Amino acid sequence: MSQRVRISLDAMGGDHGPATVVPGAAIARERHPDTTFLMVGDEAVLAPLVAAEPRLRDGVEIRHAPLAVRMDDKPSQAVRAGRGKSSMWKAIQAVRDGEADAAVSAGNTGALMAMSKICLKMMAPIERPAIACLWPTVRGESVVLDVGATIGTDASHLVDMALMGSAMARIVFDLDRPTVGLLNVGTEEMKGNEAVKEAARLLRESDLPNLSYHGFVEGTDLGLGTTDVVVTEGFTGNIALKTAEGTAKQIAAYLKGAMGRTLMAKIGYLFARGAFDALKAKMDPSRANGGVFLGLEGIVIKSHGSASPEGFASAIDIAHDMARHDLMRTIRDMLDATPAATSA
Amino acid sequence: MSQRVRISLDAMGGDHGPATVVPGAAIARERHPDTTFLMVGDEAVLAPLVAAEPRLRDGVEIRHAPLAVRMDDKPSQAVRAGRGKSSMWKAIQAVRDGEADAAVSAGNTGALMAMSKICLKMMAPIERPAIACLWPTVRGESVVLDVGATIGTDASHLVDMALMGSAMARIVFDLDRPTVGLLNVGTEEMKGNEAVKEAARLLRESDLPNLSYHGFVEGTDLGLGTTDVVVTEGFTGNIALKTAEGTAKQIAAYLKGAMGRTLMAKIGYLFARGAFDALKAKMDPSRANGGVFLGLEGIVIKSHGSASPEGFASAIDIAHDMARHDLMRTIRDMLDATPAATSA
Repeated sequence: MSQRVRISLDAMGGDHGPATVVPGAAIARERHPDTTFLMVGDEAVLAPLVAAEPRLRDGVEIRHAPLAVRMDDKPSQAVRAGRGKSSMWKAIQAVRDGEADAAVSAGNTGALMAMSKICLKMMAPIERPAIACLWPTVRGESVVLDVGATIGTDASHLVDMALMGSAMARIVFDLDRPTVGLLNVGTEEMKGNEAVKEAARLLRESDLPNLSYHGFVEGTDLGLGTTDVVVTEGFTGNIALKTAEGTAKQIAAYLKGAMGRTLMAKIGYLFARGAFDALKAKMDPSRANGGVFLGLEGIVIKSHGSASPEGFASAIDIAHDMARHDLMRTIRDMLDATPAATSA
Repeated sequence: MSQRVRISLDAMGGDHGPATVVPGAAIARERHPDTTFLMVGDEAVLAPLVAAEPRLRDGVEIRHAPLAVRMDDKPSQAVRAGRGKSSMWKAIQAVRDGEADAAVSAGNTGALMAMSKICLKMMAPIERPAIACLWPTVRGESVVLDVGATIGTDASHLVDMALMGSAMARIVFDLDRPTVGLLNVGTEEMKGNEAVKEAARLLRESDLPNLSYHGFVEGTDLGLGTTDVVVTEGFTGNIALKTAEGTAKQIAAYLKGAMGRTLMAKIGYLFARGAFDALKAKMDPSRANGGVFLGLEGIVIKSHGSASPEGFASAIDIAHDMARHDLMRTIRDMLDATPAATSA
């Protein structure tokens, strides 16, 4: 890795494309002046936006891409049409070619994963990718994976995810030996499906140097932050993540309704406004925006498609962190320290 | 069904046993004076508790059971030791023998399900049971199943659950044709695992009379109440339910922290106290307490083990509703109206 952190941006991705990506990059740049950006997209659109942003005066290269992947393109369509030409592909390609240390896109998740697999390739012996997110907890944050890359799993993939999630947690939380839980329907040994039970046995018996296996955790443990890393299969993980988002929205709606119902409540709201703002900030989904693609030969970060510039900047923050502390080397070191029988 | 609703109670079940069950029954009795109770448990403990409760003066029969299933008993252990003798078994047996219209227990879920399957048997052609719960939403409530009875699923089981969940929704929400969603990682047709895709095809093509198939729903739709019924496999459903519970607790903790942090916030809290109490009541898990076992030849309701008397009374409310409106007949009618190729 060079001294500077070089991040390639799919400037056309997401619901708002450059209108979010350019100001998002400017916000992130202020926090990390050591970053340079490679912005990939429609040059005619990007050049004036970048020129108008003083925080992006230097260290930004614009690279033209004649095509943008649409949010509703099927992954196979996107790959067929966008390979080599789309802003998404070219942003990933920059990582493969060593021009960037990480890529960030707010585009279509399926297309981004399909292109990343083809362009970057899987990191042997990992066979299937995962997406990890930072989950806000009462104790801070946890790394939770897989939130939707791979549907269906087996024990060795769960173990691989425990390793990759721990590598990410070591970087993000600056820990030597993160605690890891396997998401299950109960904490007793006999509970769950075969994949989870077998993965638990492998993790318990292998006693890995950079990971402390905690045992099974349940859905309630996610919000409590019982472990630094929580591992689960992609179908369940995606539904858990969206259920938590939905519950947070639901309670916010209840709260808003309750505070507007009576005069007393409205007066109370005025007094407690600062407290409500602090609460809102805690529940703000943009704070923890950024899904990290794991299992590939390179760093790719997925931002929410509807993220605000602040949210997109959070995704860049994560890319910066992963690149600066060399996620790829951390994962490889952990794989090297793992007996072959344990991992895939 | 007799004119009265007869409910058998496992009086020894749950973290607090009779100390919760007896006052819980008294609360429910006040709301449903047409209910009679068969209380099964340690007669020496139950008799004085019931005698001291004026709301249970008549219509309560105590039946002695020499054994109580413990909360940490393995299901197989519980069945071996408790068959015929335990308060849990005898409460279920009363349903089988036509002495009660429904049974309620706050005991060990695994043991209750194992005993229910052995004692009541499955309702043909349903092969595997499900647990349905009432999920609070911004629009009211939805029926969500399976929240943990059966790990792993196939398309025909998902369809069976759509039928059974709709039968329950028709009773609880007084609807002719509830809307049904299949929980998935996206709403596009190509998303998800094979079981979910095949179940979607079956439900779309069969066009059942008492069920309106909506399509795929995501985790966020649970809190929004997008459909009256949400169907998913037991592993994912259990984790989704506990994730929502955990998120609600997490936000309650944030809120409490925020409201106690500054003097202004504390004053605001005093003014808005009524609003906060209303919010608390909305988020109170005891309001929607009671998992309905579906797929069996009889009605069994599982209360949370740690439920308060008010929470246990909610579980009795559900039992009362299911018995009074003949859940068994509603499910059988729906199965009869379904082409054999659609269901198992």
